[in-house]
Amino acid sequence: MHLDLLFDFLRFPSVSTDPARKGAVASCADWLRSRLAEIGLDAAIHPTEGHPVVLARNEHRPGRRTVLIYGHYDVQPEDPVAEWTSKPFEPELRNGVIYARGATDNKGQILAHILGVAETLKAKGELPVNLIFLIEGEEEIGSTHLEAFLAEHKSELQCDVIAVSDTGMVAPGVPTFTYGLRGIAALELRVAGPKTDLHSGIYGGAVMNPATALARLLATLHTADGQVAIPGFYEKVRPLEAWERESWSKLPCDDEMILSVTGAPALFGEAGYTSLERLWGRPTAEVNGIGGGFQGVGTKTVLPREAFAKLTFRLVPDQTPDEVLDGVSAHLRAASPAAVGLEIQRGHGGEPYITDPHSEFGKAAQRALVRAFPGKDVALIREGGSIPIINTFKRVLGVDTLLLGLALPDCAAHGPNENFPVANFEAGILLNQTLLEELARTA
Amino acid sequence: MHLDLLFDFLRFPSVSTDPARKGAVASCADWLRSRLAEIGLDAAIHPTEGHPVVLARNEHRPGRRTVLIYGHYDVQPEDPVAEWTSKPFEPELRNGVIYARGATDNKGQILAHILGVAETLKAKGELPVNLIFLIEGEEEIGSTHLEAFLAEHKSELQCDVIAVSDTGMVAPGVPTFTYGLRGIAALELRVAGPKTDLHSGIYGGAVMNPATALARLLATLHTADGQVAIPGFYEKVRPLEAWERESWSKLPCDDEMILSVTGAPALFGEAGYTSLERLWGRPTAEVNGIGGGFQGVGTKTVLPREAFAKLTFRLVPDQTPDEVLDGVSAHLRAASPAAVGLEIQRGHGGEPYITDPHSEFGKAAQRALVRAFPGKDVALIREGGSIPIINTFKRVLGVDTLLLGLALPDCAAHGPNENFPVANFEAGILLNQTLLEELARTA
Repeated sequence: MHLDLLFDFLRFPSVSTDPARKGAVASCADWLRSRLAEIGLDAAIHPTEGHPVVLARNEHRPGRRTVLIYGHYDVQPEDPVAEWTSKPFEPELRNGVIYARGATDNKGQILAHILGVAETLKAKGELPVNLIFLIEGEEEIGSTHLEAFLAEHKSELQCDVIAVSDTGMVAPGVPTFTYGLRGIAALELRVAGPKTDLHSGIYGGAVMNPATALARLLATLHTADGQVAIPGFYEKVRPLEAWERESWSKLPCDDEMILSVTGAPALFGEAGYTSLERLWGRPTAEVNGIGGGFQGVGTKTVLPREAFAKLTFRLVPDQTPDEVLDGVSAHLRAASPAAVGLEIQRGHGGEPYITDPHSEFGKAAQRALVRAFPGKDVALIREGGSIPIINTFKRVLGVDTLLLGLALPDCAAHGPNENFPVANFEAGILLNQTLLEELARTA
Repeated sequence: MHLDLLFDFLRFPSVSTDPARKGAVASCADWLRSRLAEIGLDAAIHPTEGHPVVLARNEHRPGRRTVLIYGHYDVQPEDPVAEWTSKPFEPELRNGVIYARGATDNKGQILAHILGVAETLKAKGELPVNLIFLIEGEEEIGSTHLEAFLAEHKSELQCDVIAVSDTGMVAPGVPTFTYGLRGIAALELRVAGPKTDLHSGIYGGAVMNPATALARLLATLHTADGQVAIPGFYEKVRPLEAWERESWSKLPCDDEMILSVTGAPALFGEAGYTSLERLWGRPTAEVNGIGGGFQGVGTKTVLPREAFAKLTFRLVPDQTPDEVLDGVSAHLRAASPAAVGLEIQRGHGGEPYITDPHSEFGKAAQRALVRAFPGKDVALIREGGSIPIINTFKRVLGVDTLLLGLALPDCAAHGPNENFPVANFEAGILLNQTLLEELARTA
């Protein structure tokens, strides 16, 4: 019965980035609203300039905690389709694992919350908290219209705390509470030389090569032992706390696991930190793309007129995108030689996020996790990625978010053969019930 | 009459790289053979596995110098057609300048030699030397079948010296003798990291970024003041001679000219050398192309699985491509960190070329230039580019080549609006006559 509902949900090809799927996205929102109404919530579709938002709530009463559960019903494209074992929008159960696009990200996880609420309402007739479901259709395309929606519906979205299941578990069966996310700051640089590509025989040696100049600039971003070498880059970085380092060192995910998942020949990072500390607690400077000159087969002896690199910086508290991009730009301009031009284009930014896992709500979340995964210790982690909407919630609604994810390291979110174990789905249904109970206790 | 013939020659779209033009290339070779026969030479078409070679000779007699004049009747593609003022294969004369694909490279220059021979034969009934015309149809595609042809026809191609007009003049009206060319050695390197592109948030910081590693490797190729920093790179480099530096310093081509032609913001090169010395007498390491990761519009937060660069090195005497590539490979392997893989693919190579401008033939060539450009000093130069066939001549036939080019810096060879002044065409016709006379005198 739970699985039948999930399979129905997964059959909608609700790919938000694909204009041809606009109808499927809308049908998926309608289906979701009906399910929320069916279990006794007051549910409505809210059109936006993009895909609709689905809102649902129980009857709110004074004196209770108000909890907002956020999720999304849109999914990533299914490409490359040929690499799927079963069809991406025809869910299949194999060895206790559900395979379909959206199984983990995020249909499986948000439906677990909805079914948890359904179970409670069926068993007890009411919920222990004032509840709001906010389920959007544009998470995979940057939550384009959600900030305006939040601002517009600010009063009806007022709440004490937000819960989201869209992050990971460190290993199967290990309840995981994510209390921090890295931020991001993007920047593109373009090194420009001669007005056209030049013959590298005729002019090579007397004209600076923009590709060489770019490489030399990028080489100034790090020290040989992996630190970011931009002046002031670490100034605002909050040092890792002793308990974090201690706690992370005991987690069941080691370098062997990272090597195996990534296939890298060896691991490498900032000296003085473990891999998890580098991923979750330290900022980075990464080249996401680089290009210039002749990239075809064989040789073309040009001195390219320009070369570019796309950079993103992952940020940790208390770095801010603007300050980091100011520092990076100043560093690049100072390091760029006069014989080439340098254009810097600043991209998007997102603040790092951190919440105190030992706060009242944090402790409640951990009790809920222990009850949903009996006999297991809760892993307290940060994650290396960025979920900008979490900062938007903080900024617009003034509320912290509890990240209680159910995604496994090999869930293949965004890739072929995305999957979600039935065990995680059932644990998610239970987690919703224990979470609302534990949050109610904080009132 | 001379111009009519050149225009006929230029009307053949003899683009050797374009299979659709195979017929036009063949017709052009036939036309050329007829012209050579018409003026009294023994001329023949020699098919190859590619485009045909046209050979022509006068009656050879003992006791005379034997001179081989090399040129090519194939041309570069006419793209981008939209940027031509007149049609590329409909030659037009504007203000004393001929505009057409091949006008300079090489139809105008080789036809000038043929017409010079025609004038001499018409006036005197015979030539002062034993002459061989070797005119190929594959120069623009790497002279693919010429080396085999030379080996096969070695005995009938025996000669004392070779003359080629396919290089440049330092400035309009300045007779120019090119006595050296740089060689070339090509290499592609690929830095490989994880087995697929990774999420730069999830894995950035703990896995070495191949694009960053590539940039750091490329940054080791040079010192800050523009020297190539590969150990042993300069070991075999023959120092510039005092007379060369003295003579080049007086040439009518300065940094302003290079800045204006290239549009570079400023010039830059190896410390301690002038621009001409850097271009003609010093070796280089150039990045011709670089790529890796996401190169589209906007941001994609990947840690790329690999990144590559295409390098060519311009060589000067007495560097050899093999030794240089050995040194570069050893340097790159030593500099490459263990956390990424490094693949090196060696490409083609060509030896640098140098001949003594003060040799008997060199002095004869300079006398011929002075007679063809009365009242002007001869510019003795080297060039930065590479003409591999010159080394093939030396290797297979054992003969030096005199480079007496008529191309102006703004001739737009290979580009739109290729052009050749009538004055250079007529000077070339005269130069052929003075050259054969002066070479005859060395006997």
